[in-house]
Formats: sequence, structure tokens, C-alpha cells
Amino acid sequence: MVGHAFMGAAHSQAWRVAPHFFDLPVRPVMSVLCGRDTERTAAAAERLGWAESTSDWKSVLERDDVHVVDICTPGDTHAEIAIAALEAGKHVLCEKPMANSVAEAVAMAEAAARAAERGVRAMVGFSYRRVPALSLARDLVAQGRLGRIHHVRAQYLQDWIVDPAAPLSWRLDKEKAGSGALGDIGAHIVDATQFILGDTIREVTGTLQTFVSERPLASAHSGLSGTAATGQTGPVTVDDAALFLARFAGGAVGSFEATRFANGRKNALRIEVNGSAGSLAFDLEDMNVLQFFDGTEDPAVAGYRRILVTEPGHPYVDAWWPAGHGLGYEHAFTHQAVDFVRAVAEGTDPAPSFADGLQVQCVLAAVEESAGTRTWQQV
Amino acid sequence: MVGHAFMGAAHSQAWRVAPHFFDLPVRPVMSVLCGRDTERTAAAAERLGWAESTSDWKSVLERDDVHVVDICTPGDTHAEIAIAALEAGKHVLCEKPMANSVAEAVAMAEAAARAAERGVRAMVGFSYRRVPALSLARDLVAQGRLGRIHHVRAQYLQDWIVDPAAPLSWRLDKEKAGSGALGDIGAHIVDATQFILGDTIREVTGTLQTFVSERPLASAHSGLSGTAATGQTGPVTVDDAALFLARFAGGAVGSFEATRFANGRKNALRIEVNGSAGSLAFDLEDMNVLQFFDGTEDPAVAGYRRILVTEPGHPYVDAWWPAGHGLGYEHAFTHQAVDFVRAVAEGTDPAPSFADGLQVQCVLAAVEESAGTRTWQQV
Amino acid sequence: MVGHAFMGAAHSQAWRVAPHFFDLPVRPVMSVLCGRDTERTAAAAERLGWAESTSDWKSVLERDDVHVVDICTPGDTHAEIAIAALEAGKHVLCEKPMANSVAEAVAMAEAAARAAERGVRAMVGFSYRRVPALSLARDLVAQGRLGRIHHVRAQYLQDWIVDPAAPLSWRLDKEKAGSGALGDIGAHIVDATQFILGDTIREVTGTLQTFVSERPLASAHSGLSGTAATGQTGPVTVDDAALFLARFAGGAVGSFEATRFANGRKNALRIEVNGSAGSLAFDLEDMNVLQFFDGTEDPAVAGYRRILVTEPGHPYVDAWWPAGHGLGYEHAFTHQAVDFVRAVAEGTDPAPSFADGLQVQCVLAAVEESAGTRTWQQV
Amino acid sequence: MVGHAFMGAAHSQAWRVAPHFFDLPVRPVMSVLCGRDTERTAAAAERLGWAESTSDWKSVLERDDVHVVDICTPGDTHAEIAIAALEAGKHVLCEKPMANSVAEAVAMAEAAARAAERGVRAMVGFSYRRVPALSLARDLVAQGRLGRIHHVRAQYLQDWIVDPAAPLSWRLDKEKAGSGALGDIGAHIVDATQFILGDTIREVTGTLQTFVSERPLASAHSGLSGTAATGQTGPVTVDDAALFLARFAGGAVGSFEATRFANGRKNALRIEVNGSAGSLAFDLEDMNVLQFFDGTEDPAVAGYRRILVTEPGHPYVDAWWPAGHGLGYEHAFTHQAVDFVRAVAEGTDPAPSFADGLQVQCVLAAVEESAGTRTWQQV
Repeated sequence: MVGHAFMGAAHSQAWRVAPHFFDLPVRPVMSVLCGRDTERTAAAAERLGWAESTSDWKSVLERDDVHVVDICTPGDTHAEIAIAALEAGKHVLCEKPMANSVAEAVAMAEAAARAAERGVRAMVGFSYRRVPALSLARDLVAQGRLGRIHHVRAQYLQDWIVDPAAPLSWRLDKEKAGSGALGDIGAHIVDATQFILGDTIREVTGTLQTFVSERPLASAHSGLSGTAATGQTGPVTVDDAALFLARFAGGAVGSFEATRFANGRKNALRIEVNGSAGSLAFDLEDMNVLQFFDGTEDPAVAGYRRILVTEPGHPYVDAWWPAGHGLGYEHAFTHQAVDFVRAVAEGTDPAPSFADGLQVQCVLAAVEESAGTRTWQQV
Repeated sequence: MVGHAFMGAAHSQAWRVAPHFFDLPVRPVMSVLCGRDTERTAAAAERLGWAESTSDWKSVLERDDVHVVDICTPGDTHAEIAIAALEAGKHVLCEKPMANSVAEAVAMAEAAARAAERGVRAMVGFSYRRVPALSLARDLVAQGRLGRIHHVRAQYLQDWIVDPAAPLSWRLDKEKAGSGALGDIGAHIVDATQFILGDTIREVTGTLQTFVSERPLASAHSGLSGTAATGQTGPVTVDDAALFLARFAGGAVGSFEATRFANGRKNALRIEVNGSAGSLAFDLEDMNVLQFFDGTEDPAVAGYRRILVTEPGHPYVDAWWPAGHGLGYEHAFTHQAVDFVRAVAEGTDPAPSFADGLQVQCVLAAVEESAGTRTWQQV
Repeated sequence: MVGHAFMGAAHSQAWRVAPHFFDLPVRPVMSVLCGRDTERTAAAAERLGWAESTSDWKSVLERDDVHVVDICTPGDTHAEIAIAALEAGKHVLCEKPMANSVAEAVAMAEAAARAAERGVRAMVGFSYRRVPALSLARDLVAQGRLGRIHHVRAQYLQDWIVDPAAPLSWRLDKEKAGSGALGDIGAHIVDATQFILGDTIREVTGTLQTFVSERPLASAHSGLSGTAATGQTGPVTVDDAALFLARFAGGAVGSFEATRFANGRKNALRIEVNGSAGSLAFDLEDMNVLQFFDGTEDPAVAGYRRILVTEPGHPYVDAWWPAGHGLGYEHAFTHQAVDFVRAVAEGTDPAPSFADGLQVQCVLAAVEESAGTRTWQQV
Repeated sequence: MVGHAFMGAAHSQAWRVAPHFFDLPVRPVMSVLCGRDTERTAAAAERLGWAESTSDWKSVLERDDVHVVDICTPGDTHAEIAIAALEAGKHVLCEKPMANSVAEAVAMAEAAARAAERGVRAMVGFSYRRVPALSLARDLVAQGRLGRIHHVRAQYLQDWIVDPAAPLSWRLDKEKAGSGALGDIGAHIVDATQFILGDTIREVTGTLQTFVSERPLASAHSGLSGTAATGQTGPVTVDDAALFLARFAGGAVGSFEATRFANGRKNALRIEVNGSAGSLAFDLEDMNVLQFFDGTEDPAVAGYRRILVTEPGHPYVDAWWPAGHGLGYEHAFTHQAVDFVRAVAEGTDPAPSFADGLQVQCVLAAVEESAGTRTWQQV
């Protein structure tokens, strides 16, 4: 695994836990953790449960006992590592957003296509697809329970930098992060809605907004919460918020919004889908619930149902606890690891593929483009 | 109409509005308002829209142009007025609780029975039966959508005297009010649950609690909000809260609670019913909604449905606004007036009858008794 | 009053009820109802409580005993009636949307300006401003409780024509209605958000969508629910849904959506506002509630508060019932009537003025324009 | 660890995960799993991640490399194992309910007291205390944010045997389980409310109910979901539901209900506490949320706050994910393991102690007693 911050911890927990709840055809071994700083990586390996650590990820690609490379670094390094790993014959699980530019994403998708011919698999880490409630949402749409889809309404609302005193971090640096709310959390709602609908966004028009353009510099080596102030400030080079309208290939219209300035919303990935036969609503802040309106019911007793997606028959749920016992944030990563391992072992292509990741990247690029031209852009 | 405080205003609004939304066989005329104080009653008549006023309710019973007597006074006067009105051949609508004692209620029920033989009707004002969501709840149970009923869970939570500085009012005086939370709001949940189930409570065990036993005296003639302090205090002679367990004739067990000390709950009449085939939940603070769980559905998509009880097919709703346009507190009084007028005009017995009111009184009396003996009491 | 359908009934209820709950400087008298069809108007006058009726609204303008004209007709007639009434010296309350075109709205605003010089008042019926929870929202923003506003998120979601078999009505006819969801319900969220923020929309980009372009013709004289099918169909000439992004003069970005195809949402006018110091959220389907997040609180106990806007100190509430007793849809019309009567009697300008109505019309026109040009439009 | 069913899996996950998120003074090693059946225990050890397995738990007590015994078996075996383990000098974590009778619980508490003198620790597994929202609830009460406590309202609602065809399991057998809903889930609300209040229940009156008295026998070795029907039925010897009223030593009154027949409620442990200064509400089906009403706020903006208990400052949360990323059911077990390990390492007494477990047992026994005598019982 490369990277050991927030995502590194989530992925480690997934690898650790998956084999104890799911029947896996092969048992993953947590062998090597890679990071930039030797000492900090060694400490992280100890804490996260990896057998070894190194600051040289390239050397790991030469090892025969490593079969999977899991990339949890900032977006500017994804392309290089992923392509090298695939060429070295390693299966790759890459965090989202897949890349910081369409060009990088194209190169990665091409590398993945070449690798697939040799039986080497690649997958992008849009983990929220594996939240049981969102998997169920996809199933209901696929079963036709919503009919023809008219509307998509998707928001990813956070507030962690609403305070102007919150320091600059790599996530606010265009070089490292590619974009701000758009790529970080906007990417999730693009992927999640396309996944649920089984459809793709065809054109968009949007706008980007940076509310606070200058922020205190944090001292070196401090993480997100490391606020040892230096007295200096630096420019925010990414968007704080991204809003866009979209049209899907299948005829639905969509309204999207990603922001880090929605005061009081901590992690509110909210999706509503309205179809001719029914509707769905989801909020990640209440992640074990899917709201479903069945429009074919007798109007006297019709209403949005609060489905507690914790029944044995629900996606992924049977492996865990009895009905009604909720799952948390990191369980989706465990499901992702399970599906990835199974695909690799069974020789099938895991989803979302790098081609899917590229398509999301194209949507994000079209939003950025439209924000500049102030017109609709084809994806 | 006798009485012109809170209930007087609600009833006046009902008589005023009903004929403009509902087809009524006869059109009610708001002729005379009765009160204790001549001047204040005249002012109230002007404000509430009554043609005349008087401080002598007995004289009204002699008038030929008065056909209905609507009693909105404190409970200690209900029996005398209602019995006299029924004997004078006037149809009677009497606010709840019907009386301050079982003995009074028995006398009233007997008077109503005698009057019914002469075609004179009597009804108790348990208005919440006419909230569309609760009427729908009753319908669903009657249709068997809940199967065999196992559980009733009913609370009426308010907080208007949680502040020990809130003054004594007639509602805290056992002489006037009969009891406290038990008779004032506990009566509502007893009636509402029995109404929804179409069943009666057979035995109870309960406890009463007065948290603040001494309160400031308000100056004379001040109402609920009249807090011109006198510096003196007086004893609270009723319960602040009443809790009891119940067993219904049909086999359900129930848990009941009425309190004026539930900080932050302003008017939370909450009812849940669990049956072998489904469940219901209601909260008066969200009064246009009925939650319904259909236990016969596929577990994959089962969940409590938030039915917005504002569809044209829902009870009483068609007379009002298009779907989705909510009703308020006083609409239930309008529905009550409509049903009462129709019953009188059609020569049928309105419900809840005085016999129903007596039965509720017996439940309340059994709760009080059990609070003293600390054992279960038959109703 | 001119017009006696849905809005006519709502306005009639307002005039009837207002003087019984609010202290008014003058008492309104419901004198003449105007409609196109003599017989049907007479029946409506009887039902709605008007003393007389006529099919000739112009004759009413000549009467000395008529001081106020209340316009509840479809939008294509507003300009003519309102301007004539103002010129005849009558105070005018005009339903929204104020007009079907900017040109008409300009003429009306000019007429209102001229009339104001003579002490004649004009007001547009954006009734939702008078829902207590939205009045409270405005107050909180004005008090600075939200700080600098970053985000507005507004949706008006209905579903009454999601069924392709729902018949054509005047609301689907561009000649009569001007536009579809945009003008009918989109106008409400434009007015409501501008009202709450005390700010105006400066530019927009949007898209319009008609999902069902052909619908059955209903037989003549049938209303919204009159579905006596004729076997013939006709074209839908308005939008079923309107989506747009907006930028406010004060720097906030907004996402707006109005649709009649949100299956299961009956009357969901939903507004969220995020500011640097706090946030608000409202849903008309739960209209007695305002959600408020105070971002200045200790994070350990911060959270969206569900304010039940039924306390005596809340806007308009004191006139009604004790705390916790909810209001319904039509109460906002009563509040509107009260504020209008008071402004007229006191000789002040009621809000929203015809100039405000014109400004909303300009926003709607800019949205339509942007939907054609596919670029941002200045308002 | 002894036992490897539902609780065994939850405890295993806790031991596995705890050291990777929390700084622990010693690192737990998952050495031996004990069960009745050699083969099934070995398979469970493999799946759950234990190094060895055995069907002889007594032999484990003799091992020097085992320092902690974690008891996850049915209640009828707790006393024997726990007492033996404590006498062998092993620290003991024992699942709830601590025992099947007060006599057993007394013996266990005495053994724990003796062990404590030798520095050997004992703790009962009331894991819900460690749900962050409930820990926060306790903190708020302890800080006086609720003032004097008036009301407790606690329900534990499930529905897993509402179907009469659900088979007999050991949980429906009085010999094995001691009681039904009362001991299984009623015990949780007794402990949780006493924990939150920092107070104890002094007297109770209650009733027990078995709705379905005969059920199909499942075939041998089948678990909860093992429904290989045998065609035979057997008697249900425990309660399906338990309801009781309670009085706390500090003056609060309480209403309690535990049931397995609340159709549609899957795992609804709901607690409300009303005090003179504020109120709390919690529902395990939305376990990352605590509702808090601050009664000292300006009434104009007061309301129940939905606190998302996922902020870094909330109990236990800092060890996990960024704000807004929710935890699931099993995280409470991890927190329990962490607190237990720390107490053992630091030589302090973990809570809840065996004395606390005994006190809960006494409350349950008083409820059972009162159900028989139909009168209030002192605890």
C-alpha cells in the first residue's frame, strides 16, 4: 500500500477486517507500506498493521510476493504509480479521484486496458458504491422500480474549512489535489449517481467558487489537523464549492453541488432520484437508511419509506450483524476490498474500472471548462 | 356556546369555517356566547363572531332559536350545563374531559341516553380523532392492515409548566380541573388509542407525580399567560405527570404517559401501534404525517413510510387544499363540527358519545386508584 | 375579489378569519366576487361567503363601497385588472406570478408607482413569506446569526403531473400561465430566498425541461381534477421542470430547482442557507419547523435545531394557539391579509411591492433566456 | 474467549481492531477460543482470528500466557466460568446479562470483590455505554446541562420473532436465557439509563407478556437463522415483551419497554431524558446522533438539536475518522475493549463492575416479581 494518511488507515482496516467476515478465495496479506518519509512510514506500518515499510515504492514493484498495489496518495502521484504497477504486473486499487487531469487519466486507462489483456486488474476506489444503501439504490433502479428517470439531485456538503482560520493543506493546493471540492467530493456524487442510474452524464454547465482565497500556512509535516500556525498565509488555488447542472444520456436532468462551506453539514452526501414509477433519497449522514417512494402504491398509504438497510438480504449485510445493527463509514472500504479480491481471484474485471474513472474525470473537466466559458460543455 | 377561552376560540373558528369548506345539511348560526363576566363575554362575542352574549347560560336553554349547546368551560361545570341542556332538548357538544368524576360522567351518560330517545344528540369533544392522520390510522387498523395488535405506546408530552415560576392556573387546581396532566392530556391518548384500535382498556396500573408542589399565585382574572405576580404562592393540587401500563380487552399491552414536564416537547401527542402485520406511528408535532410499516412487504424494501396525509382520498382532506398542503391544529375542530352537524341533521348518534366519554373517565379513575393502591385496577 | 378557484378559496378564508384572530384597524367586508361565468360565480360567492357576485369586474371598480381588489385569476389577466383597479383608486392585492411577461410586469409596477403617489397601495401575493418559519428565517439572517451568506439551495418539488395521463389544464398552457413550473412554483423560491437573504439574484444560468409533451384534453369547465377524458390530446406548452444556478449580488451562490415531476414530493418547498456563522433549512411539507445550525456553538453540542415555530414570540404565532399547536397552509394567506390591511390603513407600502414582483419576473425571464442561449444571463 | 456466536464475533472484531486505532498500554493477543464442539470451535477460531481453539475452557485457566477471559456464552454459564476465571487470577470481561438469577449475580459480584483485592479486574459487557452518543449523553447530564431529571423514557424495540413461524432458539428458553426480552434487551435500557443519569432505580412495577407461546423446533445445531423445520413445536418459556414503570432514587419517574414484537423496529434502543434545564433523545437505529434540547436558550431559537456525534472532541471519536464519518454497531465493543485493557493495565476498576451488573440483575428481578404480585417492588 502506498500512502498512510486518512485513506491509508481506511484501506488498512479493510484489508485487516475483510477476511474475518467474508469468504474470500484468497487471503490478503498486509506486507509492505510505502511512504515518503522512512521514519514516519515505519511508525505508520506498526500502527496500521503492515509487516514492513519502505520509502521506495518502486522497489516493491519488483517483489514477487506482492500481487496488489493499493494507492492512497494525493492525486498528483496516482498516474505514475498506477501505470508502473500495472506494467509490473501488479493488480491496482487506486483511490479517487483517479488523476488530476484527463491526460493522466487517459494514460492510466490505457495502461489498465493493456494490463487487462495480461489478466492484471485495475479498480478505482469510489468506495461509496459499496455502502449497502447505495448498492440497494442501484438495484432498485436496475429492477425498474423507479421507471424512467426524470431527476437527479446530488449534493456533497461538508464544512471543514468554513472557518477562514483553517490552515492551507495539500487539499487546497491545485498542484497536489487537482481541484478542490469538485474533485475531492464532487467526484463522489458524479460516480454515485451514474452508478445508481446505470447512465452517464452527457453535458454540464457549472460554476466554481472560492470563498476564502488566502489562508494561514500550517507548519511543515502537519496534517489536516496540524495547525501550528506560522503567521504566514498562502493562496487557496482550488474551489471551495462547485455547482453544476447536468443532462444524462438517458434523458434525466441533474443538479449537483459539492462544497466545503455548508455550515453544520459534516459529511452530507445526499442523493435524490425521481422516476416515473418511484423515487429514492439518501444521506450519508444517516448512511444505513435508504428512502424509497413507490409511486405505484395506493395513494392513501403511499409515502417515502425509511428502509433500514441492515437486513440479511441487503447487499453485503449478511456478512455482518443481525438486522438493525448499523454499519459505519469504513465498512464500504471492506466491501471494496472484498469485491476487488474476488474479481482478481476469479479473473473478472472489477468495477469501477479505470475507464469508469476516466469518464468521471471527463465530467469534472467539463464542469471546470464550463465554469470558464460560462456555457454548457459536452462531456 | 358556553366558555370563551382557548377552547372557545377553537370551537368558534370551527363553526365559522365549516360551512365554507364542507357541504352541510344545515348551516350553523353562531347566535349566543355565554360567560361568567358580562363585559368580558361581550368583548369575546365580538372578537369570536357571536351575534349576542350573556352571562346567564340557563336563559339560553329556554330559547327556541338555539338548537345546539357547545360547552367549552372548565370540567367542573360540564355535568350541570350538559344535563340541563339535554333536558331542555338541546343537542350538546361537550369539551373533554367530559367530567371531573365518574359520578358526574355517569349522570351525563344517563342524561344523554334519555335524550337520545327523544332524538337529542350528545358528543364529547375528543377532537384529535378528527386529525386526518389519526382517522387514517383507525381505518388501517379496521382494514386489518396491522393484523393482531400487540403493542400500544402513547405519550402526550408538553412542557408549559416545567419552569417552577409558572403561575398557578385553574388547570392546576383539582377543584376546577379534576386532575392535571392525566385528565387534560392523558384523556386524549386514552381516547385516541381506543379509537384507533376499536378496543377498550381493561386494566391499568399507574403512578402520578407532582414535581413542583407550590407555585406563584397569578392575579385575579389573568389567564394562562397572565403572570402579574402577587408575591404569594399556592399549592398545586393536581398531577404534573401520569404514567401507566394498560391491558386492552383484545390482548394488546400498552404504555401511557402524559406530562407537562417534557422539556422541549410542546404538544407531542405520540402514538405507536405494533401489530402482527404492521405498525403505525404518529406525532402531533408533525400532524400531517402518519408513519406506516407494512410487515407483509418484501423485507428488502420494507420500512416505515412517511405518509403525508394530505391526499384528496384521505379523511376530511378533499374539502381543503390540493395534495401536500398541510392542515393545522384547529382543522380537527372544524371536522368535529361537521360530523356533529351531520349526525344531528341525519338523526344518527355522533361519536364519541357520552357513553364513550364515561368509559374514558373510568380509565382515568382506575389510573388514579391504582396510583393510590399501587396495584392493577380493573376499569 | 376576482377569481374563485384554488387561490380564491384561500383568499376568502383569509378575509373571513383574519379579523377574529388579529386586531385590525379596519374590518374587511367580503362584498363582491367576480368570475367569468355568472352562474358558477354566484355559486362560488355563496360557498366562499361573498355578499354579491358578478361576471363584470369592471363594474366593480366603479363602486364606492369597494376599496380593495384582490386578484386570484390566471396570470394572463393580472396586468389588465390590476392596472385598471389601481387607476380606479382601489388598493390591489395580486396573486403571483405577478404577470406572464416582463413587459406586463413593468406596466404594473409603473401603475403601482403612480398609484402610490395618490396613497393607493399594491402588493403581490407571495404568501409563503408569511409562513412563520420563513419569517423567522429572514429575522435570523437580518440579525446576523448566519454571518456572511455562502450558499442558497432551494427546491420546489411537486409531482401532480408525473402521470402522463394527467390532463391538460390552464397551468400547462403557455398562453394562460406564462410558464410552467418556473413561474408557478419557481417564482416562490426566487421570492422566498431573496426575502430571507435581503439580497437579490444578479445572474443565472438554467435549463427547462418538458418530460411529457402531449396530454389528454379534459372536457370543458372541468377543473384541475376534472378528468372527463375526451379521447383527444393537446400539446404541453410549458416546462415541467426548471433548474438553474444563480449568483446573488452579495456574493452567495445558489442552486434552484422547480419541478412537477418529483415523485412522492407533494409540496416540498425546501430552502437551505449556509452562512459563515450558521445555517438554516426549511421544508414546506413540515411547515411549522425551521432547522437552524448555530456555528458559533461549542462543537461538542452543536447541531441543527428543530425549532417548532409555534412559540408565542414567533412571527404571527401569538394571535393563534398555545405553544406547539401547528398552523396550516392557509394561515399564511391570513397573515398576508392582515399585513395588507394594516399597510393600507396606516398608509405605508406593503411588501412585496409590485416593484418586487417585477424583479422576480426579471429573474424568471433571465432563466428562460439562459435556457435558450445556454449561457449565463444578467437579471 | 469463550463463545463464538454473535457476541463472539463482535468481541473478536474489538480485540482485532482496537490496537490499530487506540494507543493501548499493552497489546492484546488473541490466543485461545473456547467452545463446546471441538470442530465448530476450530472453524470459528480460524474465521474469527484466534491462534488456537479448545472445547475445554477450564484448561485455559491454567495457562500462564492467558491473562484475560472474555465470556460470550449464554447466560446460564456465566457464573461458573467467571468465578473460576477470577479465582484463577484472570481478568474477566463478561457479556450481559451478567447472570440468569440474582443468586448467581451475587456470587459473581462477591468473587469479583475478592479478586479486586488481588488486582484482578472484572467488567460486564454493557457495550452501549460506549456508543459515543450515549457517552456524550452521560457527560451532559453530569455537567448539569439537563438540571434536575424529571423523566426517563426508554424502549428497546425489536421485531425478530413477530412471525409465529420463527423457530425456538436458546434465547426463548428460560433455562438458557434466564428471561426473554427483559434480560436480553431490557437489561440494556436499565443499564444505559442508570449510566446516563448517574442514578439508580429504586422501585418498579411491570408486566410480562408472551404473545406466541408455542413455536417450531429448529433442528439441532442450527443457529438463530437455522430454520430447518422439524415439524414439531415447543413451548416459549420466556417473555416476548416486558413493560415497567420505575422510580429513581433521585426523584425521576421512568417508563420502560423491551419487546421483540415491535414490527418494523429492528434495533430501536430509544432513550429520552427530560430535565428542568434540558432534554436528551437517542435512537440506536440512528446511532451517531444525539438529540439535545437546551431549555435555557431563547425560546425563539430553541429546539432539539441533532448533534452528529462524530466530532473529534466527542467521546472515543478522535481515534477514528474525520468529522461526519459515522461509526457502526461494533465500534462500541472496540471502545469497551480499549477501556477494559486500560483499566487492567493501569490497575483501576473498569465500569460497569460486577456490582453494577448485580444491581441491574436486581432491577430485572424486581420487574419479574412485580409482574407476579401485580404491585410495586423495591429493588
